[in-house]
Amino acid sequence: MTTGAATTAGRSAEQRVLDRIERARLRKAKVNAERITLAHGAGGKATQSLIEAVFVDAFRNPHLEAMADGATLTLNGAARTVFTTDTFVVSPLFFPGGDIGDLAVNGTVNDLAVCGARPMYLSAGFVLEEGFPVADLRRIVESMAVAAAAAGVAVVTGDTKVVQRGKGDGCYVNTSGIGVLERDLTLSPSAVRPGDAVLVSGPIGDHGVTIMLARGELDIEADLASDTAPLHEPIAALLDAVAGGVRVLRDATRGGVATVLNEIAQAARLGVVLDEARVPVTPVVNGACELLGIDPLYVACEGRFVAVVDGEHADAALAALRGHPSGEAAAIIGRVAEEPPGTVLLKTSFGGTRIVDMLVGDPLPRIC
Amino acid sequence: MTTGAATTAGRSAEQRVLDRIERARLRKAKVNAERITLAHGAGGKATQSLIEAVFVDAFRNPHLEAMADGATLTLNGAARTVFTTDTFVVSPLFFPGGDIGDLAVNGTVNDLAVCGARPMYLSAGFVLEEGFPVADLRRIVESMAVAAAAAGVAVVTGDTKVVQRGKGDGCYVNTSGIGVLERDLTLSPSAVRPGDAVLVSGPIGDHGVTIMLARGELDIEADLASDTAPLHEPIAALLDAVAGGVRVLRDATRGGVATVLNEIAQAARLGVVLDEARVPVTPVVNGACELLGIDPLYVACEGRFVAVVDGEHADAALAALRGHPSGEAAAIIGRVAEEPPGTVLLKTSFGGTRIVDMLVGDPLPRIC
Repeated sequence: MTTGAATTAGRSAEQRVLDRIERARLRKAKVNAERITLAHGAGGKATQSLIEAVFVDAFRNPHLEAMADGATLTLNGAARTVFTTDTFVVSPLFFPGGDIGDLAVNGTVNDLAVCGARPMYLSAGFVLEEGFPVADLRRIVESMAVAAAAAGVAVVTGDTKVVQRGKGDGCYVNTSGIGVLERDLTLSPSAVRPGDAVLVSGPIGDHGVTIMLARGELDIEADLASDTAPLHEPIAALLDAVAGGVRVLRDATRGGVATVLNEIAQAARLGVVLDEARVPVTPVVNGACELLGIDPLYVACEGRFVAVVDGEHADAALAALRGHPSGEAAAIIGRVAEEPPGTVLLKTSFGGTRIVDMLVGDPLPRIC
Repeated sequence: MTTGAATTAGRSAEQRVLDRIERARLRKAKVNAERITLAHGAGGKATQSLIEAVFVDAFRNPHLEAMADGATLTLNGAARTVFTTDTFVVSPLFFPGGDIGDLAVNGTVNDLAVCGARPMYLSAGFVLEEGFPVADLRRIVESMAVAAAAAGVAVVTGDTKVVQRGKGDGCYVNTSGIGVLERDLTLSPSAVRPGDAVLVSGPIGDHGVTIMLARGELDIEADLASDTAPLHEPIAALLDAVAGGVRVLRDATRGGVATVLNEIAQAARLGVVLDEARVPVTPVVNGACELLGIDPLYVACEGRFVAVVDGEHADAALAALRGHPSGEAAAIIGRVAEEPPGTVLLKTSFGGTRIVDMLVGDPLPRIC
């Protein structure tokens, strides 16, 4: 293992990791459940199994198999167009810092941006529940329009369906997006190398905890707002600074930073070693997560991204991110290592090391 | 009026038409309702008002204002890409002749095809209800894969969300699509001219009546299946035959042929005069519609399109459609006239003339 500042568990931890990897290898992608559970929508392990066993299997093509945030398409002879889709079912529809409208615009803008594309055009598909207030719909649509203008994209095509009372939950929004690759980049987990640095663009978990508190199910009051924001500008700043050194970018939405890094580690067949002390989490989010019994690493952000960068460019990358208003709290949170392949390890603040698995179950349903 | 084989109502019918147009002119696009009703999703008048008053107003751009089935985009310097979106909430999910899966693929393929584009790439966004059988999801996804292969498109990107029991209805599917314009065409209601012929590619209403019967709310049994099918091939056959003579194409889904023709008449500021005797409707659909008290002109098709063609090319266009297996029952069902602008008139089989307005209300909710 190249985990650097060794572990308290030592050899036995390594053995457990290797056992786990072997089990994963033996385990074929399959869905054991007979019925859909909330976990299938959580963005973690169950979602991944469902996607691999049902969707990728049926639609088999290289675009889907890449399991990226968007597909890079060849149109008019040039592979310079990125296409992505995302449906938003967040509850509540309105929350501190945003609503389902700007969330839907920023979410798809960000899926394009982390593919290295300039976001250009969005579609908007609504599923409205009978009885939904038209005033709320106007508010959502106006929020989408403001977010689209801020991100420099146009909503060019749309669709509206209405379902009977009790067959929806007010308003669901699908946004699909088209962006254009203007740089000569290959952003992919397969480009990741041992020694690369892992960065996050800001404090994590604000969005997920905000939604949780907005539901009012917990007797916690906190001065907290969603981090929903478009990421194309800080990403452009990063690429301007160290374009050739950026291996892969992912926005840390459902399943949080932990799930994103597991996906990268698995695809790259490399290890990721995180330093807990360096992971930026605000005291409010940290406190709420402790009370809720959840790990901020699994909590969704809607305006933060993870970047894996050539280790030699790590400082320049960090400086570029911090130079952008949304990236002031950006941090280098870990390194890529040869071992353990396909696994994320966390060096805890107490000096131990533990495996950070993909999200299992769904502690925070309908976060986006 | 140029309704030809005059009317029984005569002058008073014309006066009613002119009164109606004047009222329409006075009526600004607005949504009077305070809450969403099923009619807002029916594809008729309420849907149009909602789109104009809420969506077009907020997102204001030339793409949306065109109110077409898809937006023609400029990418990499060339305006040759068409983008469209559609969400499917059909109930039941499985019905004679198809299911929500092939419906979702064909629906978006057809929105691209009627824009004159070759359908190429689709996205798929699922909203699943907790408890939905995984076997049903597999069946839907496999049906999508078969339909995509048949239409020559690839499903390249996707998303899955899960909502709690009682917040959905099994499965909703959004498909967005990208197509490429390979011909030098301007298909638009603004190209429509008096004397143009109105064609329909096959018998109408099969899909809507099939869904209605599949719900089992009526004590009618009929040997009927949905017409869901991809339309890119018959459309290519039509364009091969008379490319320069085709003014505008629309697939006749929600709101049926009547709504599509009203949209064209309004956009072109011309009249459309239909000949009821020439509108192809199977005896089964006709009988069911009589029992249900609905007009087949308003019933959704999912594998039929309306073409407005230069009158001089009408016979060649009809021959081209009839030359394709799906177009054997294609027909010339009417003509475009100077008067009454923005209105569709029907010469009934009894020798009278009546206005065919846009769909009001929603006799058949969740048809697609």
